[in-house]
Amino acid sequence: MDILIKDAMIITMDEGRDVIDRGYILIKDNLIKQVSYGEYIGENIGEYKNLEVINGKDYCVMPGLINAHTHAAMTMLRGYGEGLPLMRWLKEKIWPMESKFTAKHIKLGTELACLEMLSTGTTCFNDMYFYQEEVMEVAKEFNIRAVLGIPIIGEDWEHQLKEALELHKKTESCKNTMVSSMLAPHSPYTLSKEALKVIGEEGKKIDSGIHIHIAETEDEVNILKEQYNSTSCQVLLESGIFENRVVGAHCVHLTDEDIKIIKNNKVNVVYNPQSNMKLASGIPRIVEMLNEGINVCIGTDGASSNNNLNMMEEMETGALLQKLWCRDPTKLDGKEIIKMATLNGAKALGFDKLGKIKEGYLADLIMINLNKPNLVPNYNVYSNIAFSANGSEVEYVIVDGNIVMRKGEFLNIDKEKIIYDFKALCKNLM
Amino acid sequence: MDILIKDAMIITMDEGRDVIDRGYILIKDNLIKQVSYGEYIGENIGEYKNLEVINGKDYCVMPGLINAHTHAAMTMLRGYGEGLPLMRWLKEKIWPMESKFTAKHIKLGTELACLEMLSTGTTCFNDMYFYQEEVMEVAKEFNIRAVLGIPIIGEDWEHQLKEALELHKKTESCKNTMVSSMLAPHSPYTLSKEALKVIGEEGKKIDSGIHIHIAETEDEVNILKEQYNSTSCQVLLESGIFENRVVGAHCVHLTDEDIKIIKNNKVNVVYNPQSNMKLASGIPRIVEMLNEGINVCIGTDGASSNNNLNMMEEMETGALLQKLWCRDPTKLDGKEIIKMATLNGAKALGFDKLGKIKEGYLADLIMINLNKPNLVPNYNVYSNIAFSANGSEVEYVIVDGNIVMRKGEFLNIDKEKIIYDFKALCKNLM
Repeated sequence: MDILIKDAMIITMDEGRDVIDRGYILIKDNLIKQVSYGEYIGENIGEYKNLEVINGKDYCVMPGLINAHTHAAMTMLRGYGEGLPLMRWLKEKIWPMESKFTAKHIKLGTELACLEMLSTGTTCFNDMYFYQEEVMEVAKEFNIRAVLGIPIIGEDWEHQLKEALELHKKTESCKNTMVSSMLAPHSPYTLSKEALKVIGEEGKKIDSGIHIHIAETEDEVNILKEQYNSTSCQVLLESGIFENRVVGAHCVHLTDEDIKIIKNNKVNVVYNPQSNMKLASGIPRIVEMLNEGINVCIGTDGASSNNNLNMMEEMETGALLQKLWCRDPTKLDGKEIIKMATLNGAKALGFDKLGKIKEGYLADLIMINLNKPNLVPNYNVYSNIAFSANGSEVEYVIVDGNIVMRKGEFLNIDKEKIIYDFKALCKNLM
Repeated sequence: MDILIKDAMIITMDEGRDVIDRGYILIKDNLIKQVSYGEYIGENIGEYKNLEVINGKDYCVMPGLINAHTHAAMTMLRGYGEGLPLMRWLKEKIWPMESKFTAKHIKLGTELACLEMLSTGTTCFNDMYFYQEEVMEVAKEFNIRAVLGIPIIGEDWEHQLKEALELHKKTESCKNTMVSSMLAPHSPYTLSKEALKVIGEEGKKIDSGIHIHIAETEDEVNILKEQYNSTSCQVLLESGIFENRVVGAHCVHLTDEDIKIIKNNKVNVVYNPQSNMKLASGIPRIVEMLNEGINVCIGTDGASSNNNLNMMEEMETGALLQKLWCRDPTKLDGKEIIKMATLNGAKALGFDKLGKIKEGYLADLIMINLNKPNLVPNYNVYSNIAFSANGSEVEYVIVDGNIVMRKGEFLNIDKEKIIYDFKALCKNLM
């Protein structure tokens, strides 16, 4: 079924077009076919089959949000062990609980994560967690775009790498771009240089890109300094990891030299403001990195350290924190933070035709009800979405040309059942 | 009509009781009459008239949120002139626009603010803006608890003070506690010491309490240093303002001595994290002040610098910012930040029987749907509400014993009409 969205405000994220106050979008199969000002008068109507017409009056259409770093199934751990100091929290709560997880937990945890992400406007996520075959199944079932990543960590890295390469083959054999994968070495301080080197080389062979944590905490920086007298970025540069397309999560504790390395190697940086604040990790130098031309995108991290997967909140908190940090209220305005959460995310994850509402781009888009008390007046739609919305205004979600949510209701997904099953499973874990 | 809420999880904010996993609440007239574990089996049923029974299964009931510092009608200016440096924004955008406002704008602006506040769980707000008689009418019409404040600022202070005293008389003559007022001298740097002294004395006579901005920006601190060689708190102490119950908004730039003055004079501090971040004003020393036993509550400030009136977001951002600032993830946990947004707010605004779910307290409470994807699992309900909720989960709002919102729908309020009228009015302003 093809789709016509008419009479809508459109945030294109397309340089030449910016915001269309009132226009229409035609979607054919999984692609955006036409975007225009004004009214669709039916030209080339024969091209479209079973055209579903969505009245976009009082809606704003924008590219779907891209969560560039998360651990989706950690919804299982939301709010668990809250309030403990970091190491006690991990050792006494998170790790023992994680050790009980089976494929079933990951499946339900990811389903819940997908419900939350889709309903707040996220159409694509970059995952790093165990049992990624389950995640692949859930992504297909939910019709959400997913980039999978099996964490490669510690002594057992060879075995994990092998699994990751097998997973990559499976995603490659899919007919569309809805599921892909990246190699996901956990971090430079939880893997040997030897391991990083091999992973870097395997990554180049399959051209999958690499998803990795970089300099999240001060502790990590100190560990690497002690071990190698190097920074995270130096270790990753030397090991050849940076010869891949890299998506580096956090990047909180970087030296000036690190930022140069990131720039020169075109590393994509993921800003995870709520998690960095909640764990008191620190503030990454996002505005500086953007000024250097580095591609910075946004992620929620896992629900255990956020404690939600709402990219609307992440945009708001992220922009506010940088304004404060730079002591300049003009930094990171609505348009720039939205670009980070859409187009920059798409670029980081290897999609060259995603993150804009533009002819030929993948049809991942969301529709926001502008008639909500917190979204009027609408003097500046970028600012309203970045700073006034809370995610609940998203009423239509379209991914790869398929309608996933219509008027706030999921199609083909039994939300109540998932929540019921999830609660039962969590009860049994305790 | 009286109300029974049954089978609900109850966050009482009452020291001895904490969270009731499954219990009931009986409301008679405008007061909470009974709170208990387990099931209501009908004792003293004869006391209640036309008992409306609300099934609280899968809901959490908690005290309504108290927005302790806002300028409600500034919804009119949401997103207007975004991205300009502070002084240009004020001089070229905000002030010229404000000069066009009439009573009609304030009425509609406040109506919109009330829609947004009630629908995200705020049941009481402390306002400071012009045309407060309009605000009083709106508060009555919407059944939201309001503390009114006419800003007293600049040369014309005597006239404004007179108006404020008249307004106070009007609120005093109301039959209930739904509308009250405080004197609202704008700040120590926009009023002469003489003016502050007179306002402080008038305040004591009527025992209304005083609502004032304190040390919001570095500029303000510098102005006072230059003018008097004093800090904001020293000026307010010397002028006698602090002999009143004071609600001090912002309190971002305080010296150690200022914090002592605040403590010794039992000044109530309002934390406005999103506004302080958005305007890059700075970070108040909230955790230190709480440790000193200072009563700290939370406000959104106006929508022009936030850009919303959502207290759920304010709790989250506020707690995250303090964790980061203190470099300690254990600071400001869910329970403490919720206390600030409920009980501490009530105390600051002069209500001694508000902000708890407890027998004899005013029946201002909200019900949150716990069956939302972002609120499961529910290992820690405080943490879920503070860090995972976004405000859209609020489905019932009861203020002064009256149901204002039921299953997400406003009773007696034509939401669509207000939004329609508001948009039309804003269009004409441009």
